[in-house]
Amino acid sequence: MSVCRTTYQGDEALARLLSKAGVASDIAAIRSLISGNVAAPQTAASERDWLRLIARAPSPALTAQLVALRDEIAAGMADPENRATPGASAERLALLRAEMKRRGLDGFVLPRTDEHQGEYLPKRAQRVAWLTGFVGSAGVVVVLADRAAIFVDGRYTLQVRSQVDTALYDPQHLTETPPDRWLQANAGRGQRIGYDPWLHTVDGVGRLRTACERAGAELVALDGNPVDAVWTAQPPAPLAPVRVQEIAHAGAGAAEKRRAIAAGIVADGADAVVLNAPDSIAWLLNIRGGDVPRTPFALSFAVLDRDGAVDLFIDRRKLLPELFDHLGNQVAVRQPDELGPALDALGRAGRRVRVDPAAAPSWIFDRLTKAGAAVLRGEDPVQLPKACKNAVELAGCRAAHLRDGAALTRFLAWLAHEAPKGRLTEIAAGERLAAFRAEAGDLRDLSFDSITGAGPNGAIVHYRATPESNRPIRVGELFLVDSGGQYPDGTTDVTRTIAIGAPGAEERDRFTRVLKGHIALATARFPAGTSGSQLDALARLPLWQAGLDYDHGTGHGVGSYLSVHEGPHRISKIPNTVALRPGMIVSNEPGYYKTGAYGIRIENLVTVVELSGIAGAERSMLGFDTLTLAPIDRNLVEPALMTAAETAWLDAYHKRVRDNFVSLLGVRRGIGWLGRPHHLIRR
Amino acid sequence: MSVCRTTYQGDEALARLLSKAGVASDIAAIRSLISGNVAAPQTAASERDWLRLIARAPSPALTAQLVALRDEIAAGMADPENRATPGASAERLALLRAEMKRRGLDGFVLPRTDEHQGEYLPKRAQRVAWLTGFVGSAGVVVVLADRAAIFVDGRYTLQVRSQVDTALYDPQHLTETPPDRWLQANAGRGQRIGYDPWLHTVDGVGRLRTACERAGAELVALDGNPVDAVWTAQPPAPLAPVRVQEIAHAGAGAAEKRRAIAAGIVADGADAVVLNAPDSIAWLLNIRGGDVPRTPFALSFAVLDRDGAVDLFIDRRKLLPELFDHLGNQVAVRQPDELGPALDALGRAGRRVRVDPAAAPSWIFDRLTKAGAAVLRGEDPVQLPKACKNAVELAGCRAAHLRDGAALTRFLAWLAHEAPKGRLTEIAAGERLAAFRAEAGDLRDLSFDSITGAGPNGAIVHYRATPESNRPIRVGELFLVDSGGQYPDGTTDVTRTIAIGAPGAEERDRFTRVLKGHIALATARFPAGTSGSQLDALARLPLWQAGLDYDHGTGHGVGSYLSVHEGPHRISKIPNTVALRPGMIVSNEPGYYKTGAYGIRIENLVTVVELSGIAGAERSMLGFDTLTLAPIDRNLVEPALMTAAETAWLDAYHKRVRDNFVSLLGVRRGIGWLGRPHHLIRR
Repeated sequence: MSVCRTTYQGDEALARLLSKAGVASDIAAIRSLISGNVAAPQTAASERDWLRLIARAPSPALTAQLVALRDEIAAGMADPENRATPGASAERLALLRAEMKRRGLDGFVLPRTDEHQGEYLPKRAQRVAWLTGFVGSAGVVVVLADRAAIFVDGRYTLQVRSQVDTALYDPQHLTETPPDRWLQANAGRGQRIGYDPWLHTVDGVGRLRTACERAGAELVALDGNPVDAVWTAQPPAPLAPVRVQEIAHAGAGAAEKRRAIAAGIVADGADAVVLNAPDSIAWLLNIRGGDVPRTPFALSFAVLDRDGAVDLFIDRRKLLPELFDHLGNQVAVRQPDELGPALDALGRAGRRVRVDPAAAPSWIFDRLTKAGAAVLRGEDPVQLPKACKNAVELAGCRAAHLRDGAALTRFLAWLAHEAPKGRLTEIAAGERLAAFRAEAGDLRDLSFDSITGAGPNGAIVHYRATPESNRPIRVGELFLVDSGGQYPDGTTDVTRTIAIGAPGAEERDRFTRVLKGHIALATARFPAGTSGSQLDALARLPLWQAGLDYDHGTGHGVGSYLSVHEGPHRISKIPNTVALRPGMIVSNEPGYYKTGAYGIRIENLVTVVELSGIAGAERSMLGFDTLTLAPIDRNLVEPALMTAAETAWLDAYHKRVRDNFVSLLGVRRGIGWLGRPHHLIRR
Repeated sequence: MSVCRTTYQGDEALARLLSKAGVASDIAAIRSLISGNVAAPQTAASERDWLRLIARAPSPALTAQLVALRDEIAAGMADPENRATPGASAERLALLRAEMKRRGLDGFVLPRTDEHQGEYLPKRAQRVAWLTGFVGSAGVVVVLADRAAIFVDGRYTLQVRSQVDTALYDPQHLTETPPDRWLQANAGRGQRIGYDPWLHTVDGVGRLRTACERAGAELVALDGNPVDAVWTAQPPAPLAPVRVQEIAHAGAGAAEKRRAIAAGIVADGADAVVLNAPDSIAWLLNIRGGDVPRTPFALSFAVLDRDGAVDLFIDRRKLLPELFDHLGNQVAVRQPDELGPALDALGRAGRRVRVDPAAAPSWIFDRLTKAGAAVLRGEDPVQLPKACKNAVELAGCRAAHLRDGAALTRFLAWLAHEAPKGRLTEIAAGERLAAFRAEAGDLRDLSFDSITGAGPNGAIVHYRATPESNRPIRVGELFLVDSGGQYPDGTTDVTRTIAIGAPGAEERDRFTRVLKGHIALATARFPAGTSGSQLDALARLPLWQAGLDYDHGTGHGVGSYLSVHEGPHRISKIPNTVALRPGMIVSNEPGYYKTGAYGIRIENLVTVVELSGIAGAERSMLGFDTLTLAPIDRNLVEPALMTAAETAWLDAYHKRVRDNFVSLLGVRRGIGWLGRPHHLIRR
C-alpha cells in the first residue's frame, strides 16, 4: 500500500476523523493498538492489513493521519529492543541485582525465549539482548549476587565474546557445562534461586530443581519477571493483524481439524489439551498472524476441549473483522489474562488435561495442578498432523517452490554474470536476491534473514551480513547463500554454494563429499517407522571417511506457510523417535565449514513419499521426493569422486530444473535467462 | 572332576565325615546349601568348586557322600522350574486369583524378570513360566479377576500361542498394546492393582501408575509376591560358588575401580550409589559366580560409598574361602536381608544416594525415600567403565577369540565335510560344535544356548533346537549357527550362515546384501561422540534398497567374561545416546529372515578403536576392529553385487583367518583342517 506521508495533526483531529468513520474515538486505545503494531515486525502482509484493525474502510484522510501517528510512535521507539551496549550492560545488571535483592533472591535464571518457547521472539521478550547485548538465537543467563554466566552453544562461542562484557558474564558452553550443572557448583546452601515460570518448560524446571537440590538451594517460581520490572522502555506485546488462512491453501477446514485432534486426545485419556505453540494454533484454526519475525503466526494460547470446541486466548484487538466469522461459534475468543481462570475452571471440574512437558510453560502445569486438574503429560497433539502435509498443502508447496526456485535461479544466473566482475558485496547480493524473490509472486515475507557468506564468512553457520561484516564477493572464493520465502501456499528454504571463478582442488573435494551425502539422503529408501536420526549418518559418511564432519543437523521440518523450522521430526545426530511419514517436509542440508576459509552447504527441501514400485519389497518403504528446484554448481563437483549413480542423480535433477523453468518462465516471462548460468546446469 | 558315584548313607554318616574333616556338622544347613547349589545352573566351574563351599579339602569319602546327597536332592527337584502345562495352568491361575482376593487385589502385574532386571533368571524367578507355561526371554502377565493377558514382543507371537492357554491369557503385543495401555482400558474405577516392587523399575512403575490413574484405579506396591505364596515347590535362591576374577584377566584391581567410581559419583553430587546389576558388582569387585544360566555373575546388591568402601549384600554361604581375603577390609559382606536396614541408615543420615531409575527395583527407591534419603536419579555408574575394556581385557578377548574362532572353524570344516552326506541334524551339529569348543581351552561355559537353525528354522531369530523341532540339515538349504563361549579371558558370540550344497540366486542376493551391510559397519569411520544408533542404518541400507529389513538390533555390547549382552551402548534402531568409545566391544550382526524358508545372519564381534592415520582428518575419528575370526561362506556371495572395496575387505578378512589359524593350529594340533573348508575361505 502506498500512502502519501503527512505529519500527525493531533489527537483531536484524529478523533474527528474516527468519529466520521463511525469508529469509537478512544485515542488512548488507538495509540495502544498502534504501539502494539509497531512492536510487531513490519511485513507486506501486515502493512496491507493493519489499518483494518481500526476501521473497516478508512477514508484517505483517516488513513493518512493513522499512518502519521504510527510513524510518530515508531520514531519514539526507534530501538525497541534496546540491546545492551557494553556500557549499559553493567548498569542494567546492577538494576536487576537490586530487583533480585528486593525480592529476596540470591539468583535468577533467564533463558532466551518467550512464553511459547519460540525461536523467533517478539521484541518485548528480547530480555537477554536487553540485559547482556547477546543477540544469538539460543542462550541462558544465570545471575547470582556476586557472579553471572551466559550459556551459549557452539555456534555462538565467538559471538558471545564480542557482544557481551565478559567481566560481567562468564561465557559457558550450553551443552558441555549446562546451566543446571553450573548452578549445582555455584549456588550456595540455603540460597533462593528464582525463575520466571512462563519461560521454562516442566522438563527444564525439573533439571534446575535437581541442580538446586544438589546444591542445597531452593528453586523459586516468580510472579513477574524481574527484568520486566527494571526494563522501563520494554515494548508492548505485538499486535500484528491476524488473517484467515484460506482453505484453498490449508486443504482442510478448521472444524474438521479440531474434531480429529479432539478425538485423538480423548483416545489417549484426556478431556482437554492446552496448546502453547502458536504454530499449532495457527494450523488448527487456519489463521495466520505476524507477531514475531519471519513467521506468520499470532502469539496466543488455546484450550481444545474433548468435543472439539476451542477457547482461544488472544488479544482480540489484533483479529481482523472477518476472523470472527471464520472462527465460528465453536471457538471462543478470550483475552490472554483469562487463561489462568480458565485453567482453574478445568481443575475445579476435575478434568484430565494434557500438556506437553517439553514445550509448555511450567506456569500452566503449576496452575492446573494447584486447581486440582489431573495433568497428563503428552506431546502437543497438533505437531504430528501439522507436519504431515495434505495433498493441497503439498501441491501449494510445489507451486511455491517453482516460483521460489525460479527467483533463485534468476539470481544465480545474475550472480554468474556479475560476480566475476568483482564489484559485488554480500549485502548487495542479498538485496538482489530479495528483489528477485519479491518478483516471484505472492511473497509475504522472507522465511528467515538470508545468509550471504563470501569466503570465510561462509564458514560461519549462522552468519548474517551486517554493514560491519559486509565482505566483497571475490573471484577465487566460494559464496554461500541460504535463503527462503514465506508464500501463502508454502514456505521455502534453500542453500547453494557457488564458486566465483575456478575453485581449488580442496574445495572441489569437500563440495563433492557434501554433495554425495546430499544424494545419499535424497535417494535413501527406508521402511515405515524409520526416524530422521536413523538416516542422519548417510549424509555424513562421505565426510566421515575423510575425517571431516559438520556441526549442525542434517534436516529440519518446514511448515506450510508457517515456521521454517518445525517439529516433531528432524534429521539429526540428536536422538528423535518420530518416524518420518508421507507428506512430511524436511530439509536435506549437509555442509562443510573450514574456519577462516570457506563454507559449503547444499540444501533442498524434500517430502517423504511412499515407494510402491520396489520389486520384491517385503516392507512398506518410504523415500524422499525433492521439492527445491535450483541448479547446483557443477564447477565444484570432482567427477572422480562420484559414482555413476550419483552422477545420474545430478543429471536428472538438473534436467528437472531446466524442464520446469522452461515451461514456467518461458511462458510467463519470455526472458532468456535459462542459457546464462551455463556452468551451473550444464550436462 | 570325576567322582565315583555312590549312594547316600544317611545324615549320621555324613555328620561323622564332616566332623572328621573339622567342619561344623549342621546337616540341615548343608542340605540347604546344596539345595541352593542345585537351584543354580551346573557348569564346569561350579562343578569344580562347589564342594569347597562346605569343606576346604574334603576327603574322598566325604566328597562321595556330598555328591550322593546332592544327587538325592537334585532328583527330588527334577523340574525345579515346573513350567505350567496347559492343564496345570488353569489351576495355578485360580490359586493366584484366590491369593489376590485374600489380599484385596483386583489385579496383579507380573513381569518376566527378577530383582536385577536380568535377562537370564534364576529358577526361583521363573514365575511367568510356572504360572503360564511361557518360557520366552521377555514378557509381562496382567491378571484381573475376570480376565488376564500376556504381553510378548514380535519374537514370541507364535511361541506364546503354542505354550500358553489362550482361553486363560489373551496374547497381546508388548510394544503395540503395552500392559499400561491395556490396564488403562481394562482396569475398573476404584480397583486395586498390585505389583511386586522388587520386579519393576521406577520408570516402569511410573508408566503403570499413570495408566491406573487414567483408569481411576489404584496401583499398590505389594509386600511379597503373590505367586511365591502359591508356588509351593518354588526353588530356593541359587548358591553357585563365587570366585575371584584374577587381575591377570581383569587388568585393574578392585580397589582402584572402587575409588574411581566413587570419585565419579561424588563429582555428580552423590554420597553413595546402590548397585543392583550383578554384572556391575562382578566387574567392580573382580568376582565371578554362576547363579543364572550362561552368565558368570553372582546375584547380589551393593552400596558403594563416597570413600570407595562397599557393602556387598550376598548370601555369604556361596563365597569360596579365598573371597574374603580378595575382597579386603573395605568390602563388608552382609546378608541380603540387611539391605533394607542399610538403606534406612543412609536415609537417617540424610545421605544423597544415586539409584538408576531405569534399572533398579522401585523397592529400593521407596525404601530410601521413606527413610529420608535424597534419591538422585542417575544411571548405574559402573556400566560405562565396564564397557570400555582396558588393554588387558582386550588382549584376553583377542586370545579367547583365537581359541573360539579356531573351534568354530574346525566345526565349519567338519560341517563342510559331513553335511553334504545328509545325515546331520540341528542338535547333532550343536553338540559337535560344543565339543569343538570344549577342546578350545579354558572354556567355562557356553555364553548362551547355541542356535542351530536349518532351513526354515534359521528364520526364527530366537530359535533353540528341541527334540520336537530338531530338523535334518538338508542339502539345498541354508544352515545358521549362532554360538559363543565364556572363557576367563573373554566372552564370544559369533554367527555364520552356511549353504549346504549349491544355494539359489535369491539366497545369494540376500546373503550378499547382509554381507554388504556387515562390511559397511565394519569399515565405517565416525567422529568421537557418535552413538551406535547413528550407525545402525549403514548395516541395513543394502537391504532397504531392495525393500527388505530385519527385526532385531544390529549390535549389542559384550562383557569381559560377563554378560554376552551388556550396555550401555548398542547399535540399534532404538535411540541410544551413549557414544561409542575406544575399547567397547559390540556385535556387528545384520541378518535377513524369510519366514518358512531360511534365515541369514553374519555376526562378528568388533572393538572400537581410535583411527589416527586419516590424512587431513579434522576430527578425532573412531572405527571398528574385528575380533571374531572364522570364515564367511563365499558360496553365498554374489560377486556382481559387491564393490571392489567390499571384495577387498572380504579377502583381507579371510587372509587374517588363515594366517592366524595356520600359526595357532598348525603348531598346536598339526591337523590338516585348514584345507578342508575350501569353499568357505578360498580367495
